[in-house]
Amino acid sequence: MSLRGERVVVAGLGLIGGSLARDLAALGLEVVGVDRPAVLRAARRQGVIASASVSFEEALGRATLLVLSGPPRLNRAWLARVARLGRRDLLVTDTGSVKGGIVADAHGLLLTRFVGGHPMAGSERSGFGASRAGLFAGRPWLLTPGPDVDPHALRRVRALVRAVGAKPMRLGAAEHDRALAFLSHLPQIVAWALRDTARGDAVARRCLTAAGPGFHDMTRLAQSPRGLWREILADNAPAVRRALLALSRELRAARP
Amino acid sequence: MSLRGERVVVAGLGLIGGSLARDLAALGLEVVGVDRPAVLRAARRQGVIASASVSFEEALGRATLLVLSGPPRLNRAWLARVARLGRRDLLVTDTGSVKGGIVADAHGLLLTRFVGGHPMAGSERSGFGASRAGLFAGRPWLLTPGPDVDPHALRRVRALVRAVGAKPMRLGAAEHDRALAFLSHLPQIVAWALRDTARGDAVARRCLTAAGPGFHDMTRLAQSPRGLWREILADNAPAVRRALLALSRELRAARP
Repeated sequence: MSLRGERVVVAGLGLIGGSLARDLAALGLEVVGVDRPAVLRAARRQGVIASASVSFEEALGRATLLVLSGPPRLNRAWLARVARLGRRDLLVTDTGSVKGGIVADAHGLLLTRFVGGHPMAGSERSGFGASRAGLFAGRPWLLTPGPDVDPHALRRVRALVRAVGAKPMRLGAAEHDRALAFLSHLPQIVAWALRDTARGDAVARRCLTAAGPGFHDMTRLAQSPRGLWREILADNAPAVRRALLALSRELRAARP
Repeated sequence: MSLRGERVVVAGLGLIGGSLARDLAALGLEVVGVDRPAVLRAARRQGVIASASVSFEEALGRATLLVLSGPPRLNRAWLARVARLGRRDLLVTDTGSVKGGIVADAHGLLLTRFVGGHPMAGSERSGFGASRAGLFAGRPWLLTPGPDVDPHALRRVRALVRAVGAKPMRLGAAEHDRALAFLSHLPQIVAWALRDTARGDAVARRCLTAAGPGFHDMTRLAQSPRGLWREILADNAPAVRRALLALSRELRAARP
């Protein structure tokens, strides 16, 4: 299955959406971008998108495949607009970090051509300026199709994932959110907590510049954008709370 | 101040001691190594040490500068042997992760030519096989001279540190141990706890291979040698416990 004939819209040209658009453009696809005007200008100037639209509705005009790469709540708002526009023919996927909510939304909106997705790539940086070609090469890309998803839709999203060099991996939305609480959301919280704990001690704060590579690796994620993460953690709050409790138990047991 | 004329013994040719011996050999110094026979053979074969000794006492024969790079307790045992041998002329430094105990030992043993040291370099790997030239280049190297240290001894240790490209940084032993509890010992405990928490969840465990670069960075230290770390954490237990408490407060506040 190839991407030939797909007319792709990427809504949200941040680290993930921007990197995806770069890879798709390199494959010869004409990508339509949706974002703020300044981002769209930069993306056009760099040849990452073929045409730009600040209007979501207008961008969908001739599209066959829509990738939602905004913050989680914006993705869900966009998905609702797809349904309101009656575009049930459109193949839609997203790249958000929490899948339960948006997969349930798609089910409720009768969008059988929505396949939840989550590329296991990225960094603490954000925005179009942080995007780069090849970000997904060799990385797992989790796919969480709902129970009523059109099998052909799933095949087309797999083709998209493979086209940018990533490895599609299917699992349930609830499983995804539970696993990611441990593998991504908890590490994110811990990175902030470790940095803030060190900053909160007068002596450790004076020695921060001397910290070794271990400390730097363990607090790198603390550079991640707060606002985006507040949404992610709130959307996956029950699973994150359970992961935090399990971590607290481990930490208590490790007390020297 | 140069290292010319120093006859250096490195006791313990692990990641740190082995890397230091490599740098000193590259500077043309004839380093005497103390370690297990198999390690000494490898170090001689690779030209890292000029002569080898399994006997600590014998190695000290003509030495002017002794670097203790074993595990913390062995370093302290070695230091006591220096005093028992009546070698108060010998300049001694160490590279251990906790400074309070060994600095107090030196004071008690009337060794005024002991300067505690701690290079802020390393990795989760260990042993001579993990050592490499240039490990300390550009890295801070904390020095914790006691109140009764001979100023000339401190200058000579600074020269050693600078010779391998590191940046000497002086602070008190108690300050060092308090800061390192936050900057190194706490991150080490957290790396284990994060990994074990994820492994302890059935769903997260199945998805471990899909984890992104953030999780890998945050659990890299969990590969560090357990035995060595058990000693380090026990030696700095009060400060580590305070750091753990502070972290727990941050984690509770971060609960979504």
